[in-house]
Amino acid sequence: MDAHFLLQTGTAVELYHTHAANKPVIDYHCHLNPQLIAENYRFADLTEIWLGGDHYKWRAMRANGIPEEYITGQKPAYEKFLKWAETVPYTMRNPLYHWTHLELSRVFGIDTVLNPSTAREIYDECTAKLQTPEFSVQSIMKRMNVEVVCTTDDPVDALAYHRMIRESGFTVKVLPTWRPDKAMAIEDPVAYNAYIAQLEEASGVSVFTFDHLLEALQRRHDFFAAEGCSVSDHGLETFYAEPYSDAEVQTIFFKVRNGRTVDPADLLKFRSAMLYELAAMDARSNWVQQFHVGAIRNNNSRMFKRLGADTGFDGINDYNYATPMNRFFDRLESNGLLCKTILYNLNPRDNEAMVVNAYNFNDGSTPGKMQYGASWWFLDQLEGIENQINALSALGLLSRFVGMLTDSRSFLSYPRHEYFRRILCNIIGHDVESGKLPLSELPFIGKMVGDISYTNAKNYFGW
Amino acid sequence: MDAHFLLQTGTAVELYHTHAANKPVIDYHCHLNPQLIAENYRFADLTEIWLGGDHYKWRAMRANGIPEEYITGQKPAYEKFLKWAETVPYTMRNPLYHWTHLELSRVFGIDTVLNPSTAREIYDECTAKLQTPEFSVQSIMKRMNVEVVCTTDDPVDALAYHRMIRESGFTVKVLPTWRPDKAMAIEDPVAYNAYIAQLEEASGVSVFTFDHLLEALQRRHDFFAAEGCSVSDHGLETFYAEPYSDAEVQTIFFKVRNGRTVDPADLLKFRSAMLYELAAMDARSNWVQQFHVGAIRNNNSRMFKRLGADTGFDGINDYNYATPMNRFFDRLESNGLLCKTILYNLNPRDNEAMVVNAYNFNDGSTPGKMQYGASWWFLDQLEGIENQINALSALGLLSRFVGMLTDSRSFLSYPRHEYFRRILCNIIGHDVESGKLPLSELPFIGKMVGDISYTNAKNYFGW
Amino acid sequence: MDAHFLLQTGTAVELYHTHAANKPVIDYHCHLNPQLIAENYRFADLTEIWLGGDHYKWRAMRANGIPEEYITGQKPAYEKFLKWAETVPYTMRNPLYHWTHLELSRVFGIDTVLNPSTAREIYDECTAKLQTPEFSVQSIMKRMNVEVVCTTDDPVDALAYHRMIRESGFTVKVLPTWRPDKAMAIEDPVAYNAYIAQLEEASGVSVFTFDHLLEALQRRHDFFAAEGCSVSDHGLETFYAEPYSDAEVQTIFFKVRNGRTVDPADLLKFRSAMLYELAAMDARSNWVQQFHVGAIRNNNSRMFKRLGADTGFDGINDYNYATPMNRFFDRLESNGLLCKTILYNLNPRDNEAMVVNAYNFNDGSTPGKMQYGASWWFLDQLEGIENQINALSALGLLSRFVGMLTDSRSFLSYPRHEYFRRILCNIIGHDVESGKLPLSELPFIGKMVGDISYTNAKNYFGW
Repeated sequence: MDAHFLLQTGTAVELYHTHAANKPVIDYHCHLNPQLIAENYRFADLTEIWLGGDHYKWRAMRANGIPEEYITGQKPAYEKFLKWAETVPYTMRNPLYHWTHLELSRVFGIDTVLNPSTAREIYDECTAKLQTPEFSVQSIMKRMNVEVVCTTDDPVDALAYHRMIRESGFTVKVLPTWRPDKAMAIEDPVAYNAYIAQLEEASGVSVFTFDHLLEALQRRHDFFAAEGCSVSDHGLETFYAEPYSDAEVQTIFFKVRNGRTVDPADLLKFRSAMLYELAAMDARSNWVQQFHVGAIRNNNSRMFKRLGADTGFDGINDYNYATPMNRFFDRLESNGLLCKTILYNLNPRDNEAMVVNAYNFNDGSTPGKMQYGASWWFLDQLEGIENQINALSALGLLSRFVGMLTDSRSFLSYPRHEYFRRILCNIIGHDVESGKLPLSELPFIGKMVGDISYTNAKNYFGW
Repeated sequence: MDAHFLLQTGTAVELYHTHAANKPVIDYHCHLNPQLIAENYRFADLTEIWLGGDHYKWRAMRANGIPEEYITGQKPAYEKFLKWAETVPYTMRNPLYHWTHLELSRVFGIDTVLNPSTAREIYDECTAKLQTPEFSVQSIMKRMNVEVVCTTDDPVDALAYHRMIRESGFTVKVLPTWRPDKAMAIEDPVAYNAYIAQLEEASGVSVFTFDHLLEALQRRHDFFAAEGCSVSDHGLETFYAEPYSDAEVQTIFFKVRNGRTVDPADLLKFRSAMLYELAAMDARSNWVQQFHVGAIRNNNSRMFKRLGADTGFDGINDYNYATPMNRFFDRLESNGLLCKTILYNLNPRDNEAMVVNAYNFNDGSTPGKMQYGASWWFLDQLEGIENQINALSALGLLSRFVGMLTDSRSFLSYPRHEYFRRILCNIIGHDVESGKLPLSELPFIGKMVGDISYTNAKNYFGW
Repeated sequence: MDAHFLLQTGTAVELYHTHAANKPVIDYHCHLNPQLIAENYRFADLTEIWLGGDHYKWRAMRANGIPEEYITGQKPAYEKFLKWAETVPYTMRNPLYHWTHLELSRVFGIDTVLNPSTAREIYDECTAKLQTPEFSVQSIMKRMNVEVVCTTDDPVDALAYHRMIRESGFTVKVLPTWRPDKAMAIEDPVAYNAYIAQLEEASGVSVFTFDHLLEALQRRHDFFAAEGCSVSDHGLETFYAEPYSDAEVQTIFFKVRNGRTVDPADLLKFRSAMLYELAAMDARSNWVQQFHVGAIRNNNSRMFKRLGADTGFDGINDYNYATPMNRFFDRLESNGLLCKTILYNLNPRDNEAMVVNAYNFNDGSTPGKMQYGASWWFLDQLEGIENQINALSALGLLSRFVGMLTDSRSFLSYPRHEYFRRILCNIIGHDVESGKLPLSELPFIGKMVGDISYTNAKNYFGW
């Protein structure tokens, strides 16, 4: 994993080291805990910072035959780590293998291969470093050349930690992202009404009707905007774009507020209304909206009861969604309410349809207005990244791509930006050296690499 | 883009230059306007011939942030061209980048890279050339070594321009293709009844019943055959193969003729009947039928109202169709009414299912009877072409493939045949040089390249 | 096809020849006829052993324009063979081309390219060899270094030939596989009731109720276990996991037993119940269960009437199944009834969803408990194998993969294991030589190749 890692041509090496390596990181979508940043947290040991919440690693360990007590259970920190070290060689060709060694190398300066025989030494060295100020959360972020981070936040969140961070003078911009998934989740009336109570509290609006709901959300939206937010995000099973009337939506909302379960047709109508209104809110504030589409979550009931969500039991769904996706964006576009949009799919079989259908709604107002976003979650690996870059290239404008993000809960994930940039430069390097792109245009090509690594995101989000 | 463009091995170079480069072009599916050929039109300037109707470029310009007035609006020709020239560098890795420079090189003899700094010079040189007889429509076609062209025509078309071309002695064969999509489009009764009026006029048959409709279409089919047509084409959302009775279809047809809208179940029954009858017509005339499956069209209502269809707002659909596809062809096969067939899918996730299911209906009567057609529309790009070739190879017989077509509205698109042939030779060259194909069989391999480039189409269509 | 065939790097050559080539074959899923093994059958000529039941070749011949009389008809053996020899060059880039020459080379020791000019010589030489004891079925299996073979058997099968083989002292282990598809096939009540009669006979249980059916199947399951079976297999259109009550299932079963056709909703309920109960049976016996999902069969009615099933008219289906798949395994997992499982999909667009959703149910009990199985049927070709390996690598643990199988009806198919191992070593060799895997870990990598080629299967199945 030296300077040439993943760079198979001289042009790739030059592009990477001249135009990509030195660019700051704009991590416009992640799941970091802002409290840890505000408090400039220091992790106790390598197990806590690396294995504490990383369900990618947990899945791999379970598949490798490691008992749960070593994964999410009560075993001592080093014993857990050792089980991970045993698993690492078995992850060869999985992104975990590259991520593991990139993180050791780039964050901890350790270039030893992790396996059971090196586990003790690596654990001790990293844990010792984690005790020093250079390995506090803020120090790591600065050393990794991070310029902006967007966390993922619920509308009822007070954003107190974001304010603390801002007021502390921390040089990395840490901004909230508006993620109102819970406002749509009427399938569980009990949880939903509990959430509405929180929303009433946060917004100061009593929510009896759907219009009240919109008003409460708008107030929180305004609050988020005032706190520096200009990006939303939505986790969707599919796009929702069924016809509905206002009266229908009010009736459905009353039902739910009365604790009643709604049938699938009404659920879809409600979601269609809510998603439209949320997108309209973003458009009126000139935000960037993001859609993550196609996960199927919490598939393992036994483990869900034991561990809750986001613990390694989510999968890839296979709904068809070209029709509702086009209908959803068309309605916004027709009403002049379509803001800048980034789309992420989880099932790679939809890559091409996703980018092509997104491009039906470019309007010449902003370069790259409709973005086909970086490869998400399970697709965030070498071949997945290549496929995203290639689909976007062949069917859209790679040059206008806003580039990579970590989508991570971990402070060690920034090397994923390096990983992406190396893959990007390697692809383009091959094109140049095989005559698919003209050598004479190398200055433009270099600028394009820099744009995708950094400048496009900066301009697109307006930071 | 010299002699070695896209040819990465010595074998590829030899295969291309010995067996492919010199072969005439059989462009068995395109959307050229026959009037322009009949009148041997000369385009006023490079903007008209290149940007006039090319919605591929329009999409790219919109995505690049170019206002619509420079795309389909009233801006002067050169200003529009300059906006395209600004966009070109941003299309790197998109097929437009290669197409642009191949067309400049192969048609206009210009090997300069197009960008804002070269725009004026290129525009002036091309526009000057377009004033000369060597750049009339017919001259371009002859210089591009075109042997046959099939346009795309409605059953009501009088085919007057095709006759004019034939009688003029133009050495390129320009044949019509029967594309009866409108005869199936009962979802809009007003438009449908207006179309039936045209059909009555053209056929001399009064259309009161479904049987009359079939009779009117059969007369036009006979007329097309008499004018040299032996190829049909159908643009389908999916295959239609629902059970129906004659009485049901008659009733549905009466409803539509009375201006009433039919429900989705009836729409599907009608389409199933119509598609079957049209395929049967083709079989009785021993034609070749083509199916283009999987577009989702006119997704942007605002722009559709402003610009109409085919203006860059069509996408990729994601219906499932293995079941109706098999049922449709099985019924034809069972009744001895399955003619030679070429299938094109737009969603690349269906490549493998498409070729495998097509091959369920080969019957040993004709080599390559059921064809998995060249990569279509959004898939007509380097990786899309490779994927089509590879899917066909692994799951069918590449050797029997009838090869490339432009599917284009432009007289400048013939280099797409060169592009395809180079990719084909490059793939096969790699196979030979890596020992996947035996060097000893090079004579057969060379013949195969020639077959796919030219001879297979000539034999398959019988020209 | 020498020692370096498909091995493009020095590392690949070393990995293959040191860790893969010499490993025995565990062919844990095939369709061999156990009678031919028990009787140590000798084939009459090359046509019988090679073309007799091979619908892959039949499809290719039909696509190549060969009349049916030379394929499944009454033409003399050599004339049929000659038509195949004519077709072979036209299969270049199809797996048949590599399989053909690998089988000639590895089984018959013939390295001549097959085409019409070599047909006579090859036919005569192979046919002569087939007359010798060295080319009896058992001799071929031993020479191909086969250690275990699992055939595919119906619950009513008496397994007499398996017992004969076992008792004969044949050194290759030939085990049955429990494939109870017919117990689920209530869509045809006549055939189903005939089958139940066979089941009653075989089990000694009178089957009036659904519980009787389960009892009868359990007895046969116990019998299979006693005969050495520990593997099941299911051919599914999709996963079935609809809610049902016991009463509903009983009622549906009564209907079918009374010869009545059930509606689609009831069919789905019944299949859901049956599939769950069959999986539970396997779990209670600690077997390995396999699911082959996504074929669409017998699409050509005319040929089905003439030739029956498995004659080259099956295709790739395109159902969506993430939801029922997760629901099916979740119910088993929740009830502690999920045994080791191998999943195969036929539509390659589902590769990624299949492996990711399977991994939702690893529980740390067994390394690689949930397996994403080797590329199946139409996907058993160079690119299909690469795609399976790459999807499994990126989304799961390649290192724990139980590896290849032939899935074949032919005694000549064992070189498919070699083909797979070469592709595997080639992929890993590239990774090592391009720095994606560390050279220092070559000992572990070599062990991994050996594990995937042989040891993982041995441990997983417990042989």
